[in-house]
Amino acid sequence: MAENPIRFGILGCAGIARKVSRAIILRHRQPLHRQSLEIRRRKQLPSLRQDLRKLRRRSRRPRRRRRLRPPPHQPPHPVGVALNVSEFDQILKACEANGVQFMDATMWMHNPRTAKMTEFLSDSQIFGQLKTINSCFTFAANPDFLKNDIRVKSDLDALGALGDAGWYCVRSILWIADFELPKTVTALSDPIFNEVEVFLSCGASLHWEDHKVATFHCSFLSNLTMDVTASGTKGTLHIRDLIIPFEEDKASFTVATESGFDELMTTWVPKPSEHTVTTDLPQEACMVREFSRLVAGIKGNGQSPEKKWPTYSRKTQLILDAVKASIEKGFEPVEIVS
Amino acid sequence: MAENPIRFGILGCAGIARKVSRAIILRHRQPLHRQSLEIRRRKQLPSLRQDLRKLRRRSRRPRRRRRLRPPPHQPPHPVGVALNVSEFDQILKACEANGVQFMDATMWMHNPRTAKMTEFLSDSQIFGQLKTINSCFTFAANPDFLKNDIRVKSDLDALGALGDAGWYCVRSILWIADFELPKTVTALSDPIFNEVEVFLSCGASLHWEDHKVATFHCSFLSNLTMDVTASGTKGTLHIRDLIIPFEEDKASFTVATESGFDELMTTWVPKPSEHTVTTDLPQEACMVREFSRLVAGIKGNGQSPEKKWPTYSRKTQLILDAVKASIEKGFEPVEIVS
Repeated sequence: MAENPIRFGILGCAGIARKVSRAIILRHRQPLHRQSLEIRRRKQLPSLRQDLRKLRRRSRRPRRRRRLRPPPHQPPHPVGVALNVSEFDQILKACEANGVQFMDATMWMHNPRTAKMTEFLSDSQIFGQLKTINSCFTFAANPDFLKNDIRVKSDLDALGALGDAGWYCVRSILWIADFELPKTVTALSDPIFNEVEVFLSCGASLHWEDHKVATFHCSFLSNLTMDVTASGTKGTLHIRDLIIPFEEDKASFTVATESGFDELMTTWVPKPSEHTVTTDLPQEACMVREFSRLVAGIKGNGQSPEKKWPTYSRKTQLILDAVKASIEKGFEPVEIVS
Repeated sequence: MAENPIRFGILGCAGIARKVSRAIILRHRQPLHRQSLEIRRRKQLPSLRQDLRKLRRRSRRPRRRRRLRPPPHQPPHPVGVALNVSEFDQILKACEANGVQFMDATMWMHNPRTAKMTEFLSDSQIFGQLKTINSCFTFAANPDFLKNDIRVKSDLDALGALGDAGWYCVRSILWIADFELPKTVTALSDPIFNEVEVFLSCGASLHWEDHKVATFHCSFLSNLTMDVTASGTKGTLHIRDLIIPFEEDKASFTVATESGFDELMTTWVPKPSEHTVTTDLPQEACMVREFSRLVAGIKGNGQSPEKKWPTYSRKTQLILDAVKASIEKGFEPVEIVS
């Protein structure tokens, strides 16, 4: 271990703390600090040894059908950074004043698959110019969640499905658009609220100066779906498990380039192709690695905090604000001013 | 052959006539009527023997990578039945007055895969109640198409991408919604027109009384993409090649039911599963078979024309009209009155 170790403190003990704690363990191959161990005891975290053993076993063995399945669990807690941009700006100001690295916990951004997909999207020879994006993140929250989770309380995580599932949709759209902000955002009519006016389901369309269009839909009310499709003038990208990959040690995506048909239009030529990226660390541990790297640079080498990550968070929050504003204005387009 | 043979006449000789002629040959295993043979000569239709041989060979041999690929071809001509509902109603009236079967050429409706997917969507135990649909059909038209095709001419197929690609998107949405019409349709802002005001790209959202939402995007300007995703309270359906399957002798779709995660939220439990449906006839030949069956019933057994098919066409046209009206009204919601 380095002379100047990176120490982690975890505020709060929502379910996601368990996943992040495990990521820290996996990343650093050492026990958590005392305060986090407290969480481990309370939340019955699996041991480091169990985890590593499981990961190694999984990456070695051939895929086979597993018949016995544990009951499904609800998705982790949101990464939403604030309830609006001005709140976020206060947080960011405090971070900047103290030379602290800000980074939200959008874990899939750190999966090696994301870098591979970025390569495809940036290649004008095979993807061309981006034209449209559709992003969808829904999960069917159980009755307990819909009654008690902080994401359905107007005085807690008051953006509901928009601040949670919608955060990931918007981030995926911005990522595909190389973080270029749209010109306007228009909410789709007919969002669903609970009795305290928290979003349970909503959507929007985003429009850029050059006529790029994106749509998204987020909801707590339909079966788990994480579809993202991006079309360019030359290529198409498909992902079905963007936010949490089907498996933690590998993740796939499908691409197509200059797709067409055979002469009688009965067969695709060429067909889309699937690409799989393996990873020795789950995406949340890659996130911890990136965060540790930046913190080490600041603590050890006097570097400044990386501005890319707070900028990504702020742009995402800007769009969420605009969706909310558009709904409040009766689904009128809202201009994005950064 | 029956005593009362079904005879086919093909009006027009656009590229799609070749595909339909071949479907008639494949379905009936006999040469086309004289007028159609004329088309065959002019368009160099493949021979019946060639076609049957190819199909049989393909269904027998194991899948292998083919390296030599012909250049890709543009999608076939649209099935759009009219430029608006009142025009369509005139056609239908004439058909009804003469006891003639009306059926549009939405070929994928006749693929056996569609029936299998309908089973999944109708099963409330595994799909639940429908919540959202996203449908996308785009293809990158080549410069010749964008200049000369009848789909970009204001005095010919004046609905452009909406009447062509959009037709399929809307039909897929209606099919998933069990042909229940939405309450309102709102066009997405920022459609793209050519210089004679024909749609090259546009989209809309559809909203039902019970808060179901669908969005679609259609375009002549991005790479071939045919994605449809439907989410219900319990399940999800994915299709990537709805309109023309990747292969003509089999077609797949992916479903997921009660998707969730394992305890640490690192793996999907259960994962979505892919289903493949094989067919001994390509979908366009299945369409011809259905049409022949209905015509035989009318000619031979004195049955009335089947009303289902014109009803599907009319509902699709109604939505196209509403998208156009919404654009003309500055992207206001347009109520659907059937």
